[in-house]
Amino acid sequence: MDFMEIVKSRYATKKFNGKIVPESKMQELYEMIRLSASSYGIQPWKIKVVTDAATKKALTPASYNQAQIESCSHLLVFCTDTNLKGLLVEFREMLVKGNVPSEVIETMIKMIEGGSNSMTEEQQNAWLSKQVYLAAANAINGAKALGLDSCPMEGFNASEYSKILKLPKHLQPTLVIPVGYAADTARPKLRYAKDKIFI
Amino acid sequence: MDFMEIVKSRYATKKFNGKIVPESKMQELYEMIRLSASSYGIQPWKIKVVTDAATKKALTPASYNQAQIESCSHLLVFCTDTNLKGLLVEFREMLVKGNVPSEVIETMIKMIEGGSNSMTEEQQNAWLSKQVYLAAANAINGAKALGLDSCPMEGFNASEYSKILKLPKHLQPTLVIPVGYAADTARPKLRYAKDKIFI
Repeated sequence: MDFMEIVKSRYATKKFNGKIVPESKMQELYEMIRLSASSYGIQPWKIKVVTDAATKKALTPASYNQAQIESCSHLLVFCTDTNLKGLLVEFREMLVKGNVPSEVIETMIKMIEGGSNSMTEEQQNAWLSKQVYLAAANAINGAKALGLDSCPMEGFNASEYSKILKLPKHLQPTLVIPVGYAADTARPKLRYAKDKIFI
Repeated sequence: MDFMEIVKSRYATKKFNGKIVPESKMQELYEMIRLSASSYGIQPWKIKVVTDAATKKALTPASYNQAQIESCSHLLVFCTDTNLKGLLVEFREMLVKGNVPSEVIETMIKMIEGGSNSMTEEQQNAWLSKQVYLAAANAINGAKALGLDSCPMEGFNASEYSKILKLPKHLQPTLVIPVGYAADTARPKLRYAKDKIFI
């Protein structure tokens, strides 16, 4: 499926049919998400994958009882990793393993630290969580490319999610993306005309 | 090109060869961006397209003199539209034109207003600007799908951009994406292993 067809046919699925997506297909989707762009390549995300019915049921009231949570196959909880210090430790290790010259590594880390030092904690977390939306876009487009449906959702109670999923404090649930096979049909896409948004 | 190939081959291009992308191809890219997902479908973005050499030159010092700005074909300045009241007026018009039942429209707008009323101005702007990253992901993946290269950039001076481009105050430059044909080659992609990010 070419990319134009993907973006035309992808839609926010309101209900799934409960069918389970084969693991091999999910692995392809995870790879598409994994390869996502991010600022400096720091990948400030962790994705909690929920497949068991009991946990989905427990998360439903924390999701305004939306039908996607229990009816999907895999529920992907995109969390922002807000522990920048920890991220930079992993980041440095990754660059070293990738044979990036050490002076390049130090320059990049200094730039990231310099940028983040000029931010409040709220600004820093906002900056990190924006990156998660790049990965989320790969998830929803990637799902469609693989013949799957999905729904990016901000409407959920993040602190309830943290409790139910026993997430460490530095992982902030940012977007929930149920994946599976749709039990509904797409409504016509409503978008502004090009000349309204390209100025 | 299938989506896996797109995400594998896309990379942050550091220098373009100056060749101009045909307008018909850019129109396809704009359509891919236009169809992007966003919270409630409110599309809180405006994209300033810069093609003239003088403006690119003026923007270069405001972009830490990075070579992408002057060497690209089309420079897309993704702005967050932070005027939520204005956005909701346009949004309502779009939904009415799209024959969405009026009770559905009113419910959606009440939900958006309710959600935004519980946010500080900073939180609201952060929420709106996150949506822009969904559109940006369509831009960088869409460019690759069309045989083009791109580079998502946060490293620029937003207030200088606003001045040079004479942007109204409610449009906040959020991401700059030069598009064109690469004059460099991709370095190996460095990413965390799947089991580090899928938990």
